[in-house]
Amino acid sequence: MREVVVIGAGMTKFGELWNKSIRDIFVEAALKAIEDAGVDYIDSMYIGSMSPGLFTEQEHIGALMADYLGITPVPATRVESACASGGAAFRQAFLEVASGASNIVLAGGVEKMTDAEDVTAALATAADQEYEVYQGITFPGLYALIARAHMHQYGTTRKQLAEVAVKNHRNGAKNPNAQFGFEVTLENVVNSTMVADPLRLLDCSPVTDGAAAVIVASAEVAKNIKKDFVRVIASAQASDTIALHSRESFTKLGSVVKAAEKAYRMAGIKPKDVNLVEVHDCFTIAEIVVSEDLGFFEKGKGGEAVEQGLTSIEGGKIPINTSGGLKSKGHPVGATGIAQIIEVYEQLLGKSGARQVKNARIGMTQNMGGSGASCVIHILEVK
Amino acid sequence: MREVVVIGAGMTKFGELWNKSIRDIFVEAALKAIEDAGVDYIDSMYIGSMSPGLFTEQEHIGALMADYLGITPVPATRVESACASGGAAFRQAFLEVASGASNIVLAGGVEKMTDAEDVTAALATAADQEYEVYQGITFPGLYALIARAHMHQYGTTRKQLAEVAVKNHRNGAKNPNAQFGFEVTLENVVNSTMVADPLRLLDCSPVTDGAAAVIVASAEVAKNIKKDFVRVIASAQASDTIALHSRESFTKLGSVVKAAEKAYRMAGIKPKDVNLVEVHDCFTIAEIVVSEDLGFFEKGKGGEAVEQGLTSIEGGKIPINTSGGLKSKGHPVGATGIAQIIEVYEQLLGKSGARQVKNARIGMTQNMGGSGASCVIHILEVK
Repeated sequence: MREVVVIGAGMTKFGELWNKSIRDIFVEAALKAIEDAGVDYIDSMYIGSMSPGLFTEQEHIGALMADYLGITPVPATRVESACASGGAAFRQAFLEVASGASNIVLAGGVEKMTDAEDVTAALATAADQEYEVYQGITFPGLYALIARAHMHQYGTTRKQLAEVAVKNHRNGAKNPNAQFGFEVTLENVVNSTMVADPLRLLDCSPVTDGAAAVIVASAEVAKNIKKDFVRVIASAQASDTIALHSRESFTKLGSVVKAAEKAYRMAGIKPKDVNLVEVHDCFTIAEIVVSEDLGFFEKGKGGEAVEQGLTSIEGGKIPINTSGGLKSKGHPVGATGIAQIIEVYEQLLGKSGARQVKNARIGMTQNMGGSGASCVIHILEVK
Repeated sequence: MREVVVIGAGMTKFGELWNKSIRDIFVEAALKAIEDAGVDYIDSMYIGSMSPGLFTEQEHIGALMADYLGITPVPATRVESACASGGAAFRQAFLEVASGASNIVLAGGVEKMTDAEDVTAALATAADQEYEVYQGITFPGLYALIARAHMHQYGTTRKQLAEVAVKNHRNGAKNPNAQFGFEVTLENVVNSTMVADPLRLLDCSPVTDGAAAVIVASAEVAKNIKKDFVRVIASAQASDTIALHSRESFTKLGSVVKAAEKAYRMAGIKPKDVNLVEVHDCFTIAEIVVSEDLGFFEKGKGGEAVEQGLTSIEGGKIPINTSGGLKSKGHPVGATGIAQIIEVYEQLLGKSGARQVKNARIGMTQNMGGSGASCVIHILEVK
């Protein structure tokens, strides 16, 4: 396989973008990425999007976006793996460049969620419709089951869950693209509206409109275009049972463990070599479980870790979600995986301003779908 | 890029499969393909599906199918490009094997359309919602505009359109997996119910449930597994404007022309070298236009060609849709592109029984989305 690098990035502000359509926001992010990369053509394009059909009654958004971006007849394909669609789109761009079939590929993600009549029902199509959703459960309930099991097995506390939200909002307050770019206190979180016990409103990522795009290129081509780029040293993906009840354990996400093993092996590194990681904190408990399954903390110690500040930007052993994460930055589901890549790309190039991690050389992204039925992990490095 | 081959294939019967769910039919096709290939593992899986969200309220079908196929944690990703989703899924499998990242990849497609409340509305999400569908037009209307323009510009006749349906049903009558495996006469077609003038019921492909899968492998690995396999000598994809009204011409499909140019160049062949082709005959006029845009006939002569029998199995210059095509075999949209690959694979291996094309050595598939906003072309060869 050829060496693959990232040479440019662009995203919209995340939020309730009432005055813009799905095509407006994707084109905005894509043009920013193309300008940032300084390229005058792309060979092909992948778009991660979970459910434009249910959210906006528009499928076929590969062709639609190629058209509105003004790049026809360039091939454009949509990739879907629920909330991991963005990570999966990045992986397809990586594979296409690695294969030698293309030199410059745009990997984007988009979701326009605030136009939907019933966002919760649309999101629930990422769970097992026949054996989970028809029984009345949706995602807050599924992650509440994970949280209760983790509290029971490992003594994880209500306060530790809240610490995830507090940290991520502290980071997001320094991110101008964040949907909820303000700080929250422990009291705010533990007193917010109950959603699915023990998860409260401020334990949940929001409903968001947004788009993000990066330019992926072969290392040879990149050298002639840009001085600053970031190498993709691992791309790994794994699946797990779609239904939570089919698993041996509620407190370990098998797809995360398997994808992480593959990613570390491909990159030839260990968890201690990673300087920052963007994880899929769709709910506060998700960040705790994932931080353990990625090997940063012993199983059951993720709650203590965030409480002790080990995942903070300042002085943390492994800063997690420096962007604000899904919790504060927002979670336009198909765009999230690409936005994670953008955060790591900018951190590694030293462009993250007030939330910069010092001397960051290796960064990781972990993007997942449903209650972890799919997971995509990438590791990026700057030399 | 490494050489890529197809080593196995399996599909369900196409039709109204009321007693089977989307997961049942995909798993059936995938298991048949795995058995046909004789492999005991796969490295990853791609699934083409246009809109499981709108048809069956289930997204995230990559993970769902990996689970029901019993292959977790193998990575599984859904690919969507409207009715070209199957072709796009095959292309991703091709690129992954070509890159060297994987040795054996399953490329499948599935659609369960008869469960949907409003199939026409779901299919219309492949067109431009804001500028076409909101004005009241759906796909029969869009292809009727193409047909009228072709009749006006080139003198294509009502009878020539009907000849496409007659030929494809004649072929489909020899295909045990066809939804409508019976012959129709010219009189049947020209007297069938009007749908969108000049297109009548028997000019239109049906609403279908079905799944199809093939096993793609690297040539080196394949040699140790199977004696009989087919080489993939070209994979090409292109886009065009999503809305028909944005194009210079209604009678030429730009994405087909561009993808064909790339495919012929990659394979190092010319149209005259192709022994059979499966084209995307969602409506009879589509087959006529595509047969011209692929370079088999001069622009405007596609109607005459079918009338003169040049596209028939017996004695045709270039047999088109030996499987029965979308028209007779059925059109479960996400599965169609894979079913096309299966027909060519079986023809090249001499396994097509009563509809066998003699001495077939090179075959092509042409799969498209919407009114041609996306097109994926593959060329396969047996040595």
